[in-house]
Amino acid sequence: MKVTNFLLGYKNIRIVQDSEMFNFSIDSVLLPNFVTITPAKKNILDIGCGNAPIPLILSTKTKAKIIGVEIQKEVSEMALESVKLNKLEDQIKILNEDIKVLKDKYPTESFDTITCNPPYFKVSENSRFNKNDYKTIARHEVTLNLQELFNISKKLLKNGGNIAIVHRPERLVDIITTMRGNNIEPKKIRFVYPKQNSNSNVLLIEGIKNGKPGLQIMHPLYIEDENGNYTNEITRNFTNEGDK
Amino acid sequence: MKVTNFLLGYKNIRIVQDSEMFNFSIDSVLLPNFVTITPAKKNILDIGCGNAPIPLILSTKTKAKIIGVEIQKEVSEMALESVKLNKLEDQIKILNEDIKVLKDKYPTESFDTITCNPPYFKVSENSRFNKNDYKTIARHEVTLNLQELFNISKKLLKNGGNIAIVHRPERLVDIITTMRGNNIEPKKIRFVYPKQNSNSNVLLIEGIKNGKPGLQIMHPLYIEDENGNYTNEITRNFTNEGDK
Repeated sequence: MKVTNFLLGYKNIRIVQDSEMFNFSIDSVLLPNFVTITPAKKNILDIGCGNAPIPLILSTKTKAKIIGVEIQKEVSEMALESVKLNKLEDQIKILNEDIKVLKDKYPTESFDTITCNPPYFKVSENSRFNKNDYKTIARHEVTLNLQELFNISKKLLKNGGNIAIVHRPERLVDIITTMRGNNIEPKKIRFVYPKQNSNSNVLLIEGIKNGKPGLQIMHPLYIEDENGNYTNEITRNFTNEGDK
Repeated sequence: MKVTNFLLGYKNIRIVQDSEMFNFSIDSVLLPNFVTITPAKKNILDIGCGNAPIPLILSTKTKAKIIGVEIQKEVSEMALESVKLNKLEDQIKILNEDIKVLKDKYPTESFDTITCNPPYFKVSENSRFNKNDYKTIARHEVTLNLQELFNISKKLLKNGGNIAIVHRPERLVDIITTMRGNNIEPKKIRFVYPKQNSNSNVLLIEGIKNGKPGLQIMHPLYIEDENGNYTNEITRNFTNEGDK
């Protein structure tokens, strides 16, 4: 295990990762900056938390209790190490469980907010994780599909609670129809573009359980500027001091 | 009738309109520049053609026969005048009909491509047409809803044929679910933004009858630059010399 102790930038939050096994992606930084978190949100669930980048970043933005669920034991152990390293044990709980089993242990309407960065092909194809451990990724992809994710969220979210996920634009039609089919109304979308004049390759979408129809398409988010440098907004995402 | 004879810019195409009654909008210039038109497309239907901006602009891009259908008699007469003014009677046919009635006069799979710029609230609120003739707009809106539009298109499109519409992003969820519900798979979307850092206010979407799932989110289209001038792409849209 080649553990690196990576400075996330958020209020000096550090994250434990193994470049041979699991690196968090930029998607996991974008999502906690996209999801709507208000002071009224007291309980957050991050499904498939990996080494916990989303809970860690969220901890700089909210005092809510955060539960991160990770099905892979070794990855969940890295998540736990990160939580301890940042002394966030009081706020973040890491569970090495399958959400499809875990969901039955919670009463309905247990959470104000759910976040999820599900595995999807593009990330798999490009990531070292995938090349080195193809079987794990393959299992990952069959572990939780969109229908299961939104059906579980329908149960666990409070009425009016929100779920935000990061995914691929190619799947937008599946995502939208599955959300609405589970009484989760899409309310805002932000498309992420690698640079200007490129098609979008990442999608951030948030829905509200039993929300009214009416969707907001936010202004585009570009990763790189015309010189190939991170845009100001991306740089801010990595260095934000938090809003808590 | 205050008829103006407006130079569209496309190969000196001129359009007849009445500023008291019906002005074409920028949406009607964006749509014919967005829809996929190949030489194989021989028959195009424009539903709710207004004073025919879409057929007129399409005539600069294709040799296909184009039928424009307009339910309002006076507006269809302006469309006809425009067609004559540009000597395009051989290519463009204007019909003063209700598409819900007209659809039964055509055999199934009659068209390669359908375009439609349906009326929707935002345009209505802002346009002089709306203020001066509220009842007409109100009828317009109940004349054809999304379900009817895509159901008619499902019948009239050839297998693999495309339909492109311009609409409001707020309605994206309804649009996507209605398209898929009528076996028209959304294949590409372009979001239009009034300027940078604004939410999108216009949506261009194209679907394929019995198409495979897989959606492309194209790069954003901005109307104005940071100085409040039309962007280069918008200027090109108004002055394009055509691709025919």
